[in-house]
Amino acid sequence: MTALSESLPASPPPSAPTSLSEPPFAGRHIGPSEADQQRMLETVGFESVADLVAVAVPEAIRAKDRLTLPAAARESEAIAELRALAGRNRVLTSMIGLGYHDTITPAVIRRNLLENPGWYTAYTPYQPEISQGRLEALLNFQTVVSDLTGLPVAGASLLDEATAAAEAMTLARRAGRSKSNVFVVDADALPQTKRVLATRAEPLGIELAEHPLDGSALPECFGVLVQYPGASGRLRDFRAVAAAAHEAGALVVAAADLLALTLVAAPGELGADIAIGSSQRFGVPFGFGGPHAAYMSVREGLQRQLPGRLVGVSVDADGDPAYRLALQTREQHIRREKATSNICTAQVLLAVIAGMYAVYHGPEGLRRIALRAHRHAAALAGSLRAGGLEVVHEAFFDTVLVRVPGRAAEVVAAAAERGVNLWRADDDHVSVACDEKTGTAELRAVQAAFGVPERDVDVESTADALPAELLRESGYLTHPVFHDHRSETAMLRYLRRLQDKDIALDRSMIPLGSCTMKLNASTEMEPITWPEFAGVHPYAPVEQAEGYLELIGTLERWLAEVTGYDAVSLQPNAGSQGEFAGLLAIRAYHRASGQDGRDVCLIPSSAHGTNAASAVMAGMRVVVVACDADGNVDLADLDAKIAKHRDALAAIMVTYPSTHGVYEESITEVCAKVHEAGGQVYVDGANLNALVGLAKPGEFGADVSHLNLHKTFCIPHGGGGPGVGPVAVRGHLAAYLPGHPLKDGSLVGPVSAAPHGSAGILPISWAYIRMMGADGLTAATEQAILSANYLARRLAPHYPVLYTGRGGLVAHECIVDLRQITKETGVTVDDVAKRLIDYGFHAPTMSFPVSGTLMIEPTESEDLGELDRFADAMIAIREEIAKVASGAYDPVDNPLRNAPHTAESVTADEWPHPYTRSEAAYPVASLRESKYWVPVRRIDQAYGDRNLVCSCPPLEAYED
Amino acid sequence: MTALSESLPASPPPSAPTSLSEPPFAGRHIGPSEADQQRMLETVGFESVADLVAVAVPEAIRAKDRLTLPAAARESEAIAELRALAGRNRVLTSMIGLGYHDTITPAVIRRNLLENPGWYTAYTPYQPEISQGRLEALLNFQTVVSDLTGLPVAGASLLDEATAAAEAMTLARRAGRSKSNVFVVDADALPQTKRVLATRAEPLGIELAEHPLDGSALPECFGVLVQYPGASGRLRDFRAVAAAAHEAGALVVAAADLLALTLVAAPGELGADIAIGSSQRFGVPFGFGGPHAAYMSVREGLQRQLPGRLVGVSVDADGDPAYRLALQTREQHIRREKATSNICTAQVLLAVIAGMYAVYHGPEGLRRIALRAHRHAAALAGSLRAGGLEVVHEAFFDTVLVRVPGRAAEVVAAAAERGVNLWRADDDHVSVACDEKTGTAELRAVQAAFGVPERDVDVESTADALPAELLRESGYLTHPVFHDHRSETAMLRYLRRLQDKDIALDRSMIPLGSCTMKLNASTEMEPITWPEFAGVHPYAPVEQAEGYLELIGTLERWLAEVTGYDAVSLQPNAGSQGEFAGLLAIRAYHRASGQDGRDVCLIPSSAHGTNAASAVMAGMRVVVVACDADGNVDLADLDAKIAKHRDALAAIMVTYPSTHGVYEESITEVCAKVHEAGGQVYVDGANLNALVGLAKPGEFGADVSHLNLHKTFCIPHGGGGPGVGPVAVRGHLAAYLPGHPLKDGSLVGPVSAAPHGSAGILPISWAYIRMMGADGLTAATEQAILSANYLARRLAPHYPVLYTGRGGLVAHECIVDLRQITKETGVTVDDVAKRLIDYGFHAPTMSFPVSGTLMIEPTESEDLGELDRFADAMIAIREEIAKVASGAYDPVDNPLRNAPHTAESVTADEWPHPYTRSEAAYPVASLRESKYWVPVRRIDQAYGDRNLVCSCPPLEAYED
Repeated sequence: MTALSESLPASPPPSAPTSLSEPPFAGRHIGPSEADQQRMLETVGFESVADLVAVAVPEAIRAKDRLTLPAAARESEAIAELRALAGRNRVLTSMIGLGYHDTITPAVIRRNLLENPGWYTAYTPYQPEISQGRLEALLNFQTVVSDLTGLPVAGASLLDEATAAAEAMTLARRAGRSKSNVFVVDADALPQTKRVLATRAEPLGIELAEHPLDGSALPECFGVLVQYPGASGRLRDFRAVAAAAHEAGALVVAAADLLALTLVAAPGELGADIAIGSSQRFGVPFGFGGPHAAYMSVREGLQRQLPGRLVGVSVDADGDPAYRLALQTREQHIRREKATSNICTAQVLLAVIAGMYAVYHGPEGLRRIALRAHRHAAALAGSLRAGGLEVVHEAFFDTVLVRVPGRAAEVVAAAAERGVNLWRADDDHVSVACDEKTGTAELRAVQAAFGVPERDVDVESTADALPAELLRESGYLTHPVFHDHRSETAMLRYLRRLQDKDIALDRSMIPLGSCTMKLNASTEMEPITWPEFAGVHPYAPVEQAEGYLELIGTLERWLAEVTGYDAVSLQPNAGSQGEFAGLLAIRAYHRASGQDGRDVCLIPSSAHGTNAASAVMAGMRVVVVACDADGNVDLADLDAKIAKHRDALAAIMVTYPSTHGVYEESITEVCAKVHEAGGQVYVDGANLNALVGLAKPGEFGADVSHLNLHKTFCIPHGGGGPGVGPVAVRGHLAAYLPGHPLKDGSLVGPVSAAPHGSAGILPISWAYIRMMGADGLTAATEQAILSANYLARRLAPHYPVLYTGRGGLVAHECIVDLRQITKETGVTVDDVAKRLIDYGFHAPTMSFPVSGTLMIEPTESEDLGELDRFADAMIAIREEIAKVASGAYDPVDNPLRNAPHTAESVTADEWPHPYTRSEAAYPVASLRESKYWVPVRRIDQAYGDRNLVCSCPPLEAYED
Repeated sequence: MTALSESLPASPPPSAPTSLSEPPFAGRHIGPSEADQQRMLETVGFESVADLVAVAVPEAIRAKDRLTLPAAARESEAIAELRALAGRNRVLTSMIGLGYHDTITPAVIRRNLLENPGWYTAYTPYQPEISQGRLEALLNFQTVVSDLTGLPVAGASLLDEATAAAEAMTLARRAGRSKSNVFVVDADALPQTKRVLATRAEPLGIELAEHPLDGSALPECFGVLVQYPGASGRLRDFRAVAAAAHEAGALVVAAADLLALTLVAAPGELGADIAIGSSQRFGVPFGFGGPHAAYMSVREGLQRQLPGRLVGVSVDADGDPAYRLALQTREQHIRREKATSNICTAQVLLAVIAGMYAVYHGPEGLRRIALRAHRHAAALAGSLRAGGLEVVHEAFFDTVLVRVPGRAAEVVAAAAERGVNLWRADDDHVSVACDEKTGTAELRAVQAAFGVPERDVDVESTADALPAELLRESGYLTHPVFHDHRSETAMLRYLRRLQDKDIALDRSMIPLGSCTMKLNASTEMEPITWPEFAGVHPYAPVEQAEGYLELIGTLERWLAEVTGYDAVSLQPNAGSQGEFAGLLAIRAYHRASGQDGRDVCLIPSSAHGTNAASAVMAGMRVVVVACDADGNVDLADLDAKIAKHRDALAAIMVTYPSTHGVYEESITEVCAKVHEAGGQVYVDGANLNALVGLAKPGEFGADVSHLNLHKTFCIPHGGGGPGVGPVAVRGHLAAYLPGHPLKDGSLVGPVSAAPHGSAGILPISWAYIRMMGADGLTAATEQAILSANYLARRLAPHYPVLYTGRGGLVAHECIVDLRQITKETGVTVDDVAKRLIDYGFHAPTMSFPVSGTLMIEPTESEDLGELDRFADAMIAIREEIAKVASGAYDPVDNPLRNAPHTAESVTADEWPHPYTRSEAAYPVASLRESKYWVPVRRIDQAYGDRNLVCSCPPLEAYED
C-alpha cells in the first residue's frame, strides 16, 4: 500500500500570489507561461521580449504610445457586458423578407456544430486528407444546391446573395459570347442586390439596365438576372425571358429562394445558366445580416468559370473515394491576376449548417416547411382580400405584397406594436414574408395591423397560390444521406463521425503561415448563439438593434485605435471584400480630386493573389514590382515603375510584415515614394498579428488597410469561413467607405448585402479586444514574434530558413526552404506536409509565397509543449529525409512518399513496404498516447479534376 | 462529364405531407421511422404495435386511460416556455454560504465538457477499456481531494455533503472499535448536514449528540464530526478533539471546505480519519441545490470501507498503465445486503468539472482564489468592526458572522434590496460568505446593508484572519496534470483527448440492460447552463425562485400522472436515495399506525443489490423471496415468507418489469398478497421505461416507487451521475415524503442537503415530457418494447434468450445466455463484452441479474440501422465463437480472448497471433468507414486491487 502514501506531495504549498485579482484573460489566450517564455528567449538569444522586439521591429514603424483601450475585462465581466448589450437588442418577429427569413436552427446542429470547436476552429480544406469530414458536409451542401436549382455543378458557398449575384454577372461576361457590356437586372430584384451590382459593375465598365422582364424586348446584353420569386413576392415563369436572352447570346442568372424550389420548378428547368441565392433560411439565424452562405450553381460547361471553392470526389492512393477541392487552378491563390474573382474565404461553417439542415429534414421535411410558409402566405392573402385590401400578386411563394395607399408606414408601425416587423416597400405598399416560424399568432398580429378581422388559419385546407405551370415535377435529395439521419441520435452521431475525421485546433497546432490560427476562446464564442444577437433581421428598425449598434461602433473605434486609422467599416464580410472596398475608396478619392486617370496599382511579386484580383475588380491595372533576394520590395524597380506610371499611379498594395514574414526596413520609404508620386498606400492587414500594439499602419505611412478579424481578432476560420474583413482608412478616405445597401446618398456603394456585414459574429472580436486590453494585445503580438523566432531557431539547423530581417530575425512566421532538399532527395514539400499528418499535425502553408517552401506561423496561442512537439516532428521528418538521401530508405517506397498512412493501411495483413509498420504509424513515441488516424491516404488531385463529381456520389462508388 | 448529370435525380418530388405542422419531437427522439417500425414488426411477427403490446403487457396492469398531459410542445415552443420560466427566477448575488458558494465555471469547461455530449452521455465506467478518458478525469478529482485533505484515498464522488457526512458516520461505525452507538456532531456543523444525519441515524439506532467541541469532555461515541471551517465561519484547530476521540476509540470525520484547504492545514494533518465535503465551488454552478459532487477521503486502512466508486490504476494485457474502478467488491451491486452503503450513482460529471477546474487553475490559481475570498471576508470584517459592529469570530476563512441584536431580518432585507442575499443565522446574527466572485461592489452593498460606511477594499494589503497554527505547510497538486493546461488551447485539447478515448452515446448504441441509455436531446440540455437556472442558491428566498418552483411543481404533477401515484418528491438526488426515502415513508406509516414491529422487507432474489442495501439503511430486515425458473417471483415461496413474517411484514420491494426483463403476470397477485398481510408494496422504477403510458404502478397495486429521471426521463448519465431519483407515493404515504433540509416540522426528515435535490437538471425531464406529450411518451414505450423484441428475435437463433413472458415476448430488454457456450468453448461473457469494443460497441450489462448472461436494452432512441449493426456484431461474434468450438481458432490465442485490440497492438511490427490483423481490427466491413480505437487492452482488475493507486501516478509509471 505504499503507493497510497507516496501520492501525498512533500513539497511546500504554492507561494503567495503576486496579485489576488483574477489573472487577465491574456494569460489564457497566450500559450507559453512566463517561465516558458524565458526558456524560449534563451533559445532565440535575448534577455527579454522587449529586447527581441527592439531588434526585430524597425524603429521607424514603432508606435510611440501604448494603445488607448479600456482596461482588460475578466472573462466574466466581458460576458456580463455582452449580456447587457444583448439586452438592448429587441427581438421582434421579423417578416421583412428581402432574402432573410426566420428559421429554426435544430438544437442538435447548434450544439454539436455551430457551438463545437471541432467544427468551427477548422481551417479551409486545402489539406484534403485531414478535412474529409467538412468536405463531405460541403458536398452535401453542393448536392442540396445542385438538386434544388436543377443545375449540375454547385460551389461550396459564396459570401452573400448580393455578391453572389455580382459574381454571376462577371461569370456571364467571361463565359458568354455577347460583346455587349450591358447586364439586365430584374426590376423585381432585391434592392440590396441591385446596389451591390452597381458597386461592382461600374469599375468594370459594365452597364446595368433595369427591366421589368414582362415580355417587352430585352436590350442587347451579355446577361440577365431574374429574381425568382421576386423581391415583391411575385412568382413568374421566366422561360420566355431565358429563351430570348439565350437567343441574343446572353446568359441567364436566376437569383432563387432555395426553400421555394422545393415546390416550384428549378431554375435550371426554366432555362437559367446560373443560379445564385442564399441558404440562410436553411437553419442559419439572422445575426443582424450574417454570416450566411450564399450559393451558386451552373450548367454543364460553366464549371471552370465558377468562382470560389468547389468540392469534388477523387480517389486516394489506395483507389478509395476521397473528397477534395476541385479545379483549384481557377482560384485567386493560384492564378493571381488571372483569377476569375477575388473570392477567397467562403462561408463554410454556414454552408455546413445549411447542408445539415437538409440532411436532418430530408426532402419531405423541406417540402413541408416550404408548403407551410406558402400556405400561411396564401391564408394571409385571403384574409386581407376578404378584408377589402388589394394583394398585388396572384402567384407568390411566401411573400405577400399589399397595397395600402398612403398607409404603409402606419401599418408597419401597427405591426411593430404587436411584435412583428413588416416591410414598407413604398408609401403605398407593405410586404409580409412568411417563414418556418410563422403561425396563427403571427398572422393575427399582421391582420390586426392591416385592420382586417383577425382569424385563425387552417393551413391544411388553404388553397395554394402557386401557378400550375411552375409546380415542381422533378425530385431532389434522393441520396441516402438525406434520408438516414432523421432521429436526433442518428444526426448527432453523423456530426461526430464527420468531425472525428478532421484536424482542427481542438486537436493540435495548425501552423499555417499567413493564416493566424490562434485561440477562438469559448467566452468569445458563447454570445453569438444567444437569441438576442442571433434573432435580429439586418433591416430591422435601428431602434431594435441598439445593442448591436453600440457594439459595432465600439469595435470600429477600437480597430481604428489599433491600426492608427481614422475610420473603419465593418461591412466587408471577407478580406477580399475589404480589399475591394479599400481600393474603391482610393479610386473614388482620386476621382473626387480630378485624377480620373490614376488607375495603376503596383503590387509586389510576393503578394497574395487576392490583391491583384481585387485591383482588377476595382478597375485598376496591375503592375508588378519585383522583390529582391531577401523577399523585400526592390526599391530600384519600385522607382522605375513609379517613374513609368507616375501620372497614372493610383496605389501600391503591400503586405506588412511582408508575405515573406519579415519586417521590411524600407516600408516608410516605400510609402513616401508612392505618396510623393501622388499614389495611395494600401497595406494588406493579413499579417496584422505581427503589428498590434507595436506599430500602426495608419501612422507609419499607409492610407488604407483591410483587417482579417478571422485572423488577428479571433473569429474562427470555420473550416473556410466565415471571415470578416473590415476596411480601415485615414481621414481623407473616410467619405469613401462602403454605403448602406438600402440607402442612397453614399459616395461609394455597398460591397455587401447587409449594412454591417457579418454582424452576428462581431461579438467575438469585441470580446477579444475587451478582454485583452492594450497590454494583452501587445503581449500577444510579442509572443507571436517570439514563438516564430523560436521555431525558426529550432528548425534552422535542419532546414534553411529562407528570409530574415534584422538580427537574423523573422516576424510572426517563418519560411523553411525545401528546394535544395527536394533537388537532392526527391522529397517534396508535399511529402513533408502529408508526412506531418502521420505525426498528428496540419501542414504549414505550402509553396506560398515561394514554391518549394513551407511557411510556419505558430501564433501566440500555442504553448511551448506544442511548439516543441511540432519542431520535434519536423526534425524527425528531416531525419527521415536524410535516410532517403543516404539510401537507408527507398527513394520511392518510403514513409514520406507514402504518407499519410491510414489505420487500414498500417493494419493490412500484407505489409509490402521496406520500412516497418511502426515507422509508418508511430515515428515518435508520444503518438502512442494520442494518435490522429487519417481517414484516407494521399489524394490524387488530377484524377478528380479529370472525373469531376461535385455532388454526393451514389453509395456504390464507395464499394471496393 | 457524365457524372455531373447523373447526380441529378430523376425521381419525382416528395409527395404532399400529411400534415404541415412541425413534426412532433417524438419523431426525433424515437429512432426508427414508421417504415422501419413496420419492418421490425414483421420480424417480431405482429401487424401493429398495438397487437404486440396487447400480447406483451398483461391486461391486468394496463392503464385504462390515456395519460392526461398537455399536448406535446415543439422544440422551439418548449424552449420558449423554459425561457419564460427562467425569466421568473431572479438571480441575486448569493453570499449565503452554508456549503454553497458562487464560482466561475471556466467557459472552456462549460462548453467542452458540461455542454458536450461526448462527456455527458457517457455511462458509468464499468467497462474501463472504453472509459479511460473519464477515469483519468476522475483520478484527477481524487488527487485533488486526496492532496487537499491530506488523506491518501479519495473516492470518485458522493451525492452531496450531507449524505457524505451520513456515509462517513456509518463508515466510522463499521470501522471503529468503539461499541458505542453515539455519533458526536459539531454544534457548528451545517444545519442541513445535521438534519440529514438525523434522518439517516434513527433507523440504524445511532444516537446523535450535538457538542460544541470546545475542549469540554466528549461523550462516549464511535465517531465525531467536525465542521472545518464551521457553519458560522469559525476556523478552529481540532487536533485536541481528534486526539481525545482517538483515545476513546472513536473515528474523526472532518467536513471540510476544499477551497479553504489550499490555505489551512489539511484535515489529515489535524488527525481526521475521514474527510468529506462538497466540491461545488470548484466551478460547478449553484443550480438551486445541485447536482454537485461531494467527496470523501480516508486514511490508510479505511479504503476498503469507502462507500461509492473509487478509481484506481492497474495494467492492461500489454502491461501498460490503465485506469479502472478499484475494489468493486465493496459495492452494493456486488455485495447486495452486505454492501457498505446503498450508493450507486455518483456525481461523475460534476466531479470531472471540479477536477478540471483544478487542472485549469493549478495549485497557485486555487490558492489565489481562496486567498482572495478570504481577504474580502477579512476586509469586510474590518469595515464592520470599524463601523461599530461585533464580528463574532476572530479566525475565519470566507464567512463572517455578525452580531446585530434584533436586526438580522432587517439587514438581510436591506442587502436583498441591493442585490445581495445574506444569511439570517438567527434573529441576532447575519452571516456573509465571500467567494470567487466577490468584489468591491458586493462588499459595498453588504456594508450599506449593515449600515456601516461603504468603502473600497484593497485585498492585497488586508491582513489575514487565519490562525498561525493552522496555516498550511504541505504542498498539493504537484502532479504535472495540474501544471500543463494553463492556456485555454491546452485545456481544450486535453478535454478533447480524454473525450476521444471513450465511447459515449454520441458514437454508438450503449445497449445496457436496466440502464435505459436513450437520447439526451440538445433542447432538453440547453436550459441547464442558462444563468437564470444555474445561478440560484438552494437557500435563496423562494420569491427569487418562482420559475424553478413552478417547473418543479409541474414536473411533480406530471410524474404523478405518469406513475399513477398521488404525490411525488424530487428531493432524492439518486435512485438509491429515492428507495431510501420510499422505505422511510413506509416505515413512518407503519409507526404512525401503531405497527412499530413491522420491519421485514421481502426482496426477490433477482433484485438490484441497492434494494437490500436501502432496506437495511431504513432499519429493516431483509428476507429474500425465491424466483422460479422463469425468473418470476415464486408465489409459493412468497406465501411461505409472508406466513412466517406476517406480523412483522413491512414491505415487499419488486422491480417491474422484473430485472429479468419480463412483465410478470403475477404482479397484481403479489401486491394483493402483501397488502392482505398488512405490508406495503414498493415497486422499483428502474424499468419504468417499459411502462410509461401503458401501465401505472400506482394503479396496479404499488404504494410507493422511486423513478430514475436519468433512465426514463432523459437526464444523461454523465459518465456515472448525476442521477435524480424522485420518490412517488399513494395518498396514504404522502405525509411521509422527505422534509425540508432547513425546516422543522416534517414527519420524515430530509434525505438530501437541498430542498429539491438536483434541481438544476430538472429542466431536462420537464422538457422531455413537455415535448413528448401523452402520445409521444406512450409511443416511446411501445417502441422500446418493439426494439427489445426485435433484437431478441434477431439474436435468438444465435444465443438463447433467457426469459420471456407471454407469447415468447420480452419487455424492454432481453437477456442472452452464454453459460452453455462458455461451458463448451471457454468463451466468456467478458470475452464477448471486450470483443464488442473491437466492433465499436459498449457491452450490454454483464452477468446481471444472472451470471454468465448479457442483458440488452436498446431503448426507443436507437434507429433500425444501429440495431442491425449491433445485432450483426453479436452474430459475427457468435461465428467467431463457433470457430473456437470447431478448432479453427486457437482456444486461448483468439480474437475473443485477446480483445479488445488497440491500434498499437494491431500495427505492431511483430504479429504473434494465429488469426490475422484484419480479423482483429476489421471483423465487419463497416468498421473500415468508422472505427473506434480503444486506447488500452484488456485490463487486469486483480492487479489494480493488489497494488492500489488511486491518485495520479507519477509520469514514470507510464514509461515502458
